[in-house]
Amino acid sequence: MAEQQKPEVKKVAELMRALDFCMFTTVTADGRMYARPMSNNRKVEFDGDIWFFSGADTRKVDEISREPRVHLSYADPQRFCFLSVDGVTEVATDVDKKRELWLKELERWFPNGPEDANVVLLKVRPSVIAYWTGDGDGLVTME
Amino acid sequence: MAEQQKPEVKKVAELMRALDFCMFTTVTADGRMYARPMSNNRKVEFDGDIWFFSGADTRKVDEISREPRVHLSYADPQRFCFLSVDGVTEVATDVDKKRELWLKELERWFPNGPEDANVVLLKVRPSVIAYWTGDGDGLVTME
Repeated sequence: MAEQQKPEVKKVAELMRALDFCMFTTVTADGRMYARPMSNNRKVEFDGDIWFFSGADTRKVDEISREPRVHLSYADPQRFCFLSVDGVTEVATDVDKKRELWLKELERWFPNGPEDANVVLLKVRPSVIAYWTGDGDGLVTME
Repeated sequence: MAEQQKPEVKKVAELMRALDFCMFTTVTADGRMYARPMSNNRKVEFDGDIWFFSGADTRKVDEISREPRVHLSYADPQRFCFLSVDGVTEVATDVDKKRELWLKELERWFPNGPEDANVVLLKVRPSVIAYWTGDGDGLVTME
């Protein structure tokens, strides 16, 4: 089953990488949903895992620590391409991984570079991905 | 306080109307989040209330009946305009209201017109709206 899903997972991973910006939705302490635009810096793996850089002392990381289930909405209305990604987030602090995924343009947000303890990675592992494109719709279950 | 907020509410209502398509996020029976693209057909009131047409016998309406709290993500990465809308949804079946908001192009989805009992309105009343634009960011609390 996992083998059969691979081509479709690769397809949605490529869509997410191309769209780049998503609305990253967390559940707040008072049970609301809140989303903020985030770039994946094209760091989407072919198995669907998505990496984001974040400050450690942010509301987002607080919310993920309490409730790791998140939702990512990708939308490009002009090209009619939409993705709904439900997943679970892990906060990673490994310096080697941060160096591996680091991009020069991130210095705008994090001037002290990937070694800074206040820079963390958010790894979103998708569980259910739905997509709508001009070429068709689909649903991919990863678990 | 409500009076002071009015200009900003009007501004975000205009942004939502212009973007038109959002990812309409509901909480599923098993506690995940799921979003689908939906057009507001430019039916956003100046007080921020947003109207959507939907089939009555849809998964979306089932989910809203169980958990009326929803989230709307509006995104236009090319113009750098993003909105996060947390709100509560009411399912409305009033025929006069359906007729008032009806648009000819909805016949593509609902060929029997606004009188069809399977056509309902979803009225989203925002509680917290966050926005990011090239001209600046903001947070509007409606409750």
